[in-house]
Amino acid sequence: MAYVHGYDERANERLDDQARALLDLLHADTAYPAGSLVLEAGCGVGAQTVTLAQRSPQARFVSIDVEPESVAAAARRVQAAGVSNVELRRADIFDLPFEAASFDHVFVCFVLEHLAQPVAALEILRELVRPGGTITVIEGDHGSTYFHPDSAAAHEAIQCQVELQRAAGGDSNIGRQVYPLLVAAGLDAVRVRPLVVYVDASRPELVDAFTRKTFTAMIEGVRDDAIVAGLIAPERFDEGIRDLYRTAEADGVFSYTFFKGVGRRA
Amino acid sequence: MAYVHGYDERANERLDDQARALLDLLHADTAYPAGSLVLEAGCGVGAQTVTLAQRSPQARFVSIDVEPESVAAAARRVQAAGVSNVELRRADIFDLPFEAASFDHVFVCFVLEHLAQPVAALEILRELVRPGGTITVIEGDHGSTYFHPDSAAAHEAIQCQVELQRAAGGDSNIGRQVYPLLVAAGLDAVRVRPLVVYVDASRPELVDAFTRKTFTAMIEGVRDDAIVAGLIAPERFDEGIRDLYRTAEADGVFSYTFFKGVGRRA
Repeated sequence: MAYVHGYDERANERLDDQARALLDLLHADTAYPAGSLVLEAGCGVGAQTVTLAQRSPQARFVSIDVEPESVAAAARRVQAAGVSNVELRRADIFDLPFEAASFDHVFVCFVLEHLAQPVAALEILRELVRPGGTITVIEGDHGSTYFHPDSAAAHEAIQCQVELQRAAGGDSNIGRQVYPLLVAAGLDAVRVRPLVVYVDASRPELVDAFTRKTFTAMIEGVRDDAIVAGLIAPERFDEGIRDLYRTAEADGVFSYTFFKGVGRRA
Repeated sequence: MAYVHGYDERANERLDDQARALLDLLHADTAYPAGSLVLEAGCGVGAQTVTLAQRSPQARFVSIDVEPESVAAAARRVQAAGVSNVELRRADIFDLPFEAASFDHVFVCFVLEHLAQPVAALEILRELVRPGGTITVIEGDHGSTYFHPDSAAAHEAIQCQVELQRAAGGDSNIGRQVYPLLVAAGLDAVRVRPLVVYVDASRPELVDAFTRKTFTAMIEGVRDDAIVAGLIAPERFDEGIRDLYRTAEADGVFSYTFFKGVGRRA
């Protein structure tokens, strides 16, 4: 399965920018008790790993990813940050080398969007959690994107990413489904919160870090694939990208919503 | 100018339901100091008036609307609630009988969406505020609506309301523009917050009060006008409404965002 964001350096830089801008928003209410053993399933290049581990310094983390190169990048990042409570391993969510009920909690961030069987993945992860433990899921939702000035071309460029994700078996609009997915996977006491990234000129750090360097750069990153796939004409795509950058000007507004859900194993 | 929501009893009931479900969300951070004189511009049938006045019992409110019947309905509501710090008057925002700088603050909720010249209205209101006073604006944004299961028919039904509002000179997607509108009207220190109504089955009171009785009922309310205007076929509209009600079922999700902005007169 193709990973729609790609593995090149620019993609990694984008994930860095995204992580810095969003860390507070995404992780503010996640802290695991001393002695907890937590599985981070699908850590990628470790964009969330250091923050996750630093916010729960007395918990221990096992962070896995299916891609060896991502695991290596995450390991470098963890080492550079001087974080010692993370063990990195290469492993596939659908073929995990762990015993049932061997973790206190599971954390899954920006992973389900790439999976054709998100409920099956959550069911597997649920079995790894001890009774009373939790699964936390964070996902974005591209269909939650709107902006001013509005632009049909910009929506079409975003839709290219949605279509490529779908062709790769994933779902870019999965954020809104976190509640039903956790319920369908048999979790209890499911609670979901929207985490809105609202950006206007009074929040200049977000204009740059999120509107420009995270979201628009992510959409820009699928330009060649979208054109090769015949999803859009090059000029139209470029018009959409220009219009997205336009929303980062002084009278522009941009909004995107992540969803964070927590469910408990009965 | 036609008022797209209509003035019939059902519309008034809907505004009642909306007010009850949303009062906390919309008004939680609005409280005016003792002795303040506040203009509520465009109070309609008083859906916000009682809450506004009760949250600032030591402030005095002048609540105006252009429609005599709405003013009368608001007066009955204020009287029924036993609220004594509100004076109701019929007046037109574009022809106001007040002196410059005669109010400490202005409050405008669900009004700009109906106006062809929202910046001109804000400029007029700004002149009524003493230097250092504030204007607070709350508006919804229909383009912020998304849901699960997704449905093209539902989006088309919502778009009918957007088109009818546009034909009447208004803008149903104005919420995202609150920041640039306040800035364009010359207000200082403008801050805008999104107020998200996120609804899933873990929040049953919102499923009923917001998804069904506020939002879907509002869209249902434009059925005849949309069909007469040739915007949509009756069957397609009804399919969209069914799909909106579908999002209120146990595995459904619904999200809508209001925007609340405050600006200061220099």
